[in-house]
Amino acid sequence: MSEDVVRPIRLIRRLTIIGVGLIGGSLARALRVAGACEEVVGCGRSAEHLGRAQELGVVDRFDTDVASAAAGADMIVVCVPLGAMEAIFRSMQGHLAEDAVVTDAGSAKGSVVTAARSAFGAVPPFLVPGHPIAGTEKSGVEASFAELYRHRRVILTPLPETDARALARVRWMWEQAGAEVVDMGVEHHDRVLAATSHLPHMLAYTLVDTLAQMNEHEEIFRFAAGGFRDFTRIASSDPGMWHDICAGNREALLASMDWFVRDLQRLANAIRAGDSEALLRTFRRAKNARDQFTIQ
Amino acid sequence: MSEDVVRPIRLIRRLTIIGVGLIGGSLARALRVAGACEEVVGCGRSAEHLGRAQELGVVDRFDTDVASAAAGADMIVVCVPLGAMEAIFRSMQGHLAEDAVVTDAGSAKGSVVTAARSAFGAVPPFLVPGHPIAGTEKSGVEASFAELYRHRRVILTPLPETDARALARVRWMWEQAGAEVVDMGVEHHDRVLAATSHLPHMLAYTLVDTLAQMNEHEEIFRFAAGGFRDFTRIASSDPGMWHDICAGNREALLASMDWFVRDLQRLANAIRAGDSEALLRTFRRAKNARDQFTIQ
Repeated sequence: MSEDVVRPIRLIRRLTIIGVGLIGGSLARALRVAGACEEVVGCGRSAEHLGRAQELGVVDRFDTDVASAAAGADMIVVCVPLGAMEAIFRSMQGHLAEDAVVTDAGSAKGSVVTAARSAFGAVPPFLVPGHPIAGTEKSGVEASFAELYRHRRVILTPLPETDARALARVRWMWEQAGAEVVDMGVEHHDRVLAATSHLPHMLAYTLVDTLAQMNEHEEIFRFAAGGFRDFTRIASSDPGMWHDICAGNREALLASMDWFVRDLQRLANAIRAGDSEALLRTFRRAKNARDQFTIQ
Repeated sequence: MSEDVVRPIRLIRRLTIIGVGLIGGSLARALRVAGACEEVVGCGRSAEHLGRAQELGVVDRFDTDVASAAAGADMIVVCVPLGAMEAIFRSMQGHLAEDAVVTDAGSAKGSVVTAARSAFGAVPPFLVPGHPIAGTEKSGVEASFAELYRHRRVILTPLPETDARALARVRWMWEQAGAEVVDMGVEHHDRVLAATSHLPHMLAYTLVDTLAQMNEHEEIFRFAAGGFRDFTRIASSDPGMWHDICAGNREALLASMDWFVRDLQRLANAIRAGDSEALLRTFRRAKNARDQFTIQ
């Protein structure tokens, strides 16, 4: 933040959001409310969808061409599924303004860095990989709202080659949206997110899918209580996005699935053996951790 | 319900709730609000706790002795952990009124039937095993409320030896509390609940416990988003109760844990192999099922 002390804070002149859905749309709304940007340009594949974003007042104008949407913008936020990152980076290359800062909202950072290396030849100093820890199981610009990031955490994973001013600029942007911003290493981010987000999604998807394939599935869902509803909410998340996350954070996710299976089998063994001590110890430890986490 | 057509509905003269916590306390409150019972007697091990239930107006009086609490009651609802059922049944044996109906709220029915056989020598006609599909991760009479069962399902698992009038009486009671009552076989109930409730609890407990034991656990929980909070809510449930459910529904639960591990490993293989088709198919099927279930 020392940069902001020595230089006056400069508003974002032109914000280009590539992928105007829940994440990108909510950021645009928040920055408008905060008065942090002068103009918002939306970019995506569907003119119809972008027209809807314009009607909703989320973007001022839109362009389905990445190169021309990015041209002249001083802040470009890429909010597309991980699998589309590289193509977007390639499309904007050679069309960026001199003061352009590029960041993204991908759920896995190693794959974004790889995509950037592949598209630009090296990770450019103006690129700040980022990940807002926010969202709902809904998607689309209709679900976006200005308060999504308020009091939520945003993780930035700058590299040694990242420009300090670009990093400060992205940090400032997310703070304007109400978020608490922290820096973290790329691999560390991917390990932490595998455990707290990617693994739980795999568990919820697997549970619902297996129940859905049972003969008595209608009855099974009929007798599911409120706990089940909460537990499986994340299984309503966008399949395409989660496909890309599986590919984009493969190693860390597989490692977390491995230890989960190991620990679940350990619990099954305790149930089979009637090992009351082990069961109570596990449940108590988990309850304490969950209760403490909730208080935070 | 044909019994109710030919005979006038008779209010519960004296309702004895054994175990006045969230489940038993909420039932007492609901029946009072509905004007369905004249007197409520609370029973449990802690006089202090029962005194609190009396202060809250949940019970009219209380008794820590099961035999005298049950004596003279025409409806006795046993809301204790599964592991305590047999001892409660033994204590009330020989002290029940001639018109007494006994039911319970245990989460696994096979183990309740076994406990009854063991305590009474055979499953008595006046015993109607039951299970309200309701609750929260909270426990204790302070958490109880009259609306807990409104529009929720209650499963009764009568046996061939169950008296039809006793069954109709218990059904009527739960309907007075606002619930929709269905009958089901004991084993069927235990299989369905293993899938929709007992398995998800094991998954949530395992996930939170394993994360809690990681070196970086404070940081891990710090970066957990809203989805994780919903997903792990059930890991705050009462450890002792869940210990008993593991023992009380061991076979069905172990079977469901087995197929879950099998399917999770299948998903891991698809991630490892980069099998996009399989991933998308799984996620889409799960999302469809979850979205449909939510609409119901």
